[in-house]
Amino acid sequence: MKYAIGIDIGGTNTDIGIVDREGNCMGTDRISTSAHDEITLYADLLVESVRRLILTHGVDDISGIGVGVPNGNFYTGCIDNAVNLNFKGKVNLRELIQDRIDLPVVITNDANAAAYGEMIYGGAKEMKHFIMITLGTGVGSGIVVDGKLLYGHDGYAGELGHTIMIPGGRPCNCGRNGCLEQYASAGGIKKSYITLMKEKWGEHHRIAEEDVNSVDIVEMAEKGDPIALRTFEMTGEVLGLALANAVTYTSPKAIFLMGGPVKAGKILLDPLCRSFDKNLLFIYRDKVKIIPSHLNENEAAILGAAALTW
Amino acid sequence: MKYAIGIDIGGTNTDIGIVDREGNCMGTDRISTSAHDEITLYADLLVESVRRLILTHGVDDISGIGVGVPNGNFYTGCIDNAVNLNFKGKVNLRELIQDRIDLPVVITNDANAAAYGEMIYGGAKEMKHFIMITLGTGVGSGIVVDGKLLYGHDGYAGELGHTIMIPGGRPCNCGRNGCLEQYASAGGIKKSYITLMKEKWGEHHRIAEEDVNSVDIVEMAEKGDPIALRTFEMTGEVLGLALANAVTYTSPKAIFLMGGPVKAGKILLDPLCRSFDKNLLFIYRDKVKIIPSHLNENEAAILGAAALTW
Repeated sequence: MKYAIGIDIGGTNTDIGIVDREGNCMGTDRISTSAHDEITLYADLLVESVRRLILTHGVDDISGIGVGVPNGNFYTGCIDNAVNLNFKGKVNLRELIQDRIDLPVVITNDANAAAYGEMIYGGAKEMKHFIMITLGTGVGSGIVVDGKLLYGHDGYAGELGHTIMIPGGRPCNCGRNGCLEQYASAGGIKKSYITLMKEKWGEHHRIAEEDVNSVDIVEMAEKGDPIALRTFEMTGEVLGLALANAVTYTSPKAIFLMGGPVKAGKILLDPLCRSFDKNLLFIYRDKVKIIPSHLNENEAAILGAAALTW
Repeated sequence: MKYAIGIDIGGTNTDIGIVDREGNCMGTDRISTSAHDEITLYADLLVESVRRLILTHGVDDISGIGVGVPNGNFYTGCIDNAVNLNFKGKVNLRELIQDRIDLPVVITNDANAAAYGEMIYGGAKEMKHFIMITLGTGVGSGIVVDGKLLYGHDGYAGELGHTIMIPGGRPCNCGRNGCLEQYASAGGIKKSYITLMKEKWGEHHRIAEEDVNSVDIVEMAEKGDPIALRTFEMTGEVLGLALANAVTYTSPKAIFLMGGPVKAGKILLDPLCRSFDKNLLFIYRDKVKIIPSHLNENEAAILGAAALTW
């Protein structure tokens, strides 16, 4: 089999790609995720897009379809209560796709797909033990142990975004408080910025939550804005501690970072690595690297999902 | 091969046992660990004890020698900077034993050995994913993933006792602050008790650190002493949060507990499980059990170490 289909389902859009063994994404298509509440209609359109891609590229030796989707479960093939998707409850996506096309289907969560992409085509090619952290709307993670994705007892291993870093801290969408996600995601960075603005200017500060996003804060930090810089200091501090703690679990060779906030570069990475080094247990010192993903972010999940079928 | 030698090296004593395939410990011997600063002399005595056991039991089909030792490294066979042992620096124990007796030798840390014992002979027989937590002088852990001990990139995976739970908290022997070990080990429980006594009675409280140990505190709690009870509340709170966080990494089916403080029974387990349930991410709810080890504590590490050779 020379080709595979990789599907990256996000809250807004679904990207579909046809990928060869070398990790070249030969063609992509996009459909809306958020426009559909009805999962069967969405599955119809998804499979239609897959057929179109296969036809357009005139290939017939397809190994299967790999799907990376928030709360996707490798064992059951289901999407399970994904907060940012319209499809509520438990949805058996594997079955829905297989009912429509005669190809093997593998489902996993989006961060696992990105980790797999990094292992097969990116910076983790030679690594048996590493962690992928995706910083976006949430904080996702994929853990690789002995060269395999770690799924755990129920398929939900690797939810580092929901380790509680600050007991009683910021309320999280999961119903608890103080999760890493609330400090290190794009939204978390925005919250830190607004907290710092309020500390400086009181409740009368000018910027409302809807007026600023993490890209703006990166730009401000690049121009030397002290509150924006302090925002990334805070982010790096919490994330660095979380990653130092993560090392005590699986003792990885590297931790890869992917997603919007990573584009801040040294502005995020410098305080992050300082905090990581300070908080790392001595037996791991100088053994674990923090590395921005080597993959093109738009393609990582597609590549990883496709590779899962091989 | 029907028999194996299991060795459990503690800070004070070293227990050596001869074990059959069914997990029966047919005979044991003990030598002092702490009496020796000189590792070669210690190795002489250790191997002498092994020979004596084999001879006494008149068996010749021995599969090998398994050793559980603090900071023991499966990959290198070394003891690496163990804080509670006299043998400082890096000591290649595997080599030292193999130079003295013609048997295969496997080294791992003591908590990993206990985890392995639980998997082969204890409550984790049917489990592919679980965590063993040992509460003693320190807090050790062994993580099993896909039915195998997790060693990680460098052999030091599973150091949950050194996840930082309270940044800037109690100073730890590892040189950092706020490690789980400082709150959930026997010594940590003592520290919590003394902190609570000071809070109640001021600096003039009668009990000095050397006058109380965790066994006394268990006894006082059993008699309804409110400060002793509050001590276990505090311990359970921190440990419950740590274990809830641990689930987000490897998604285990169960977390086993072993060691002195576990003998407090419900006095520790009730607040621990309350904190665990409160802090557990909803997707894991009712899927993960907290279970006291099914093994006799004195034999668990010997059994586990022995089983590693098979």
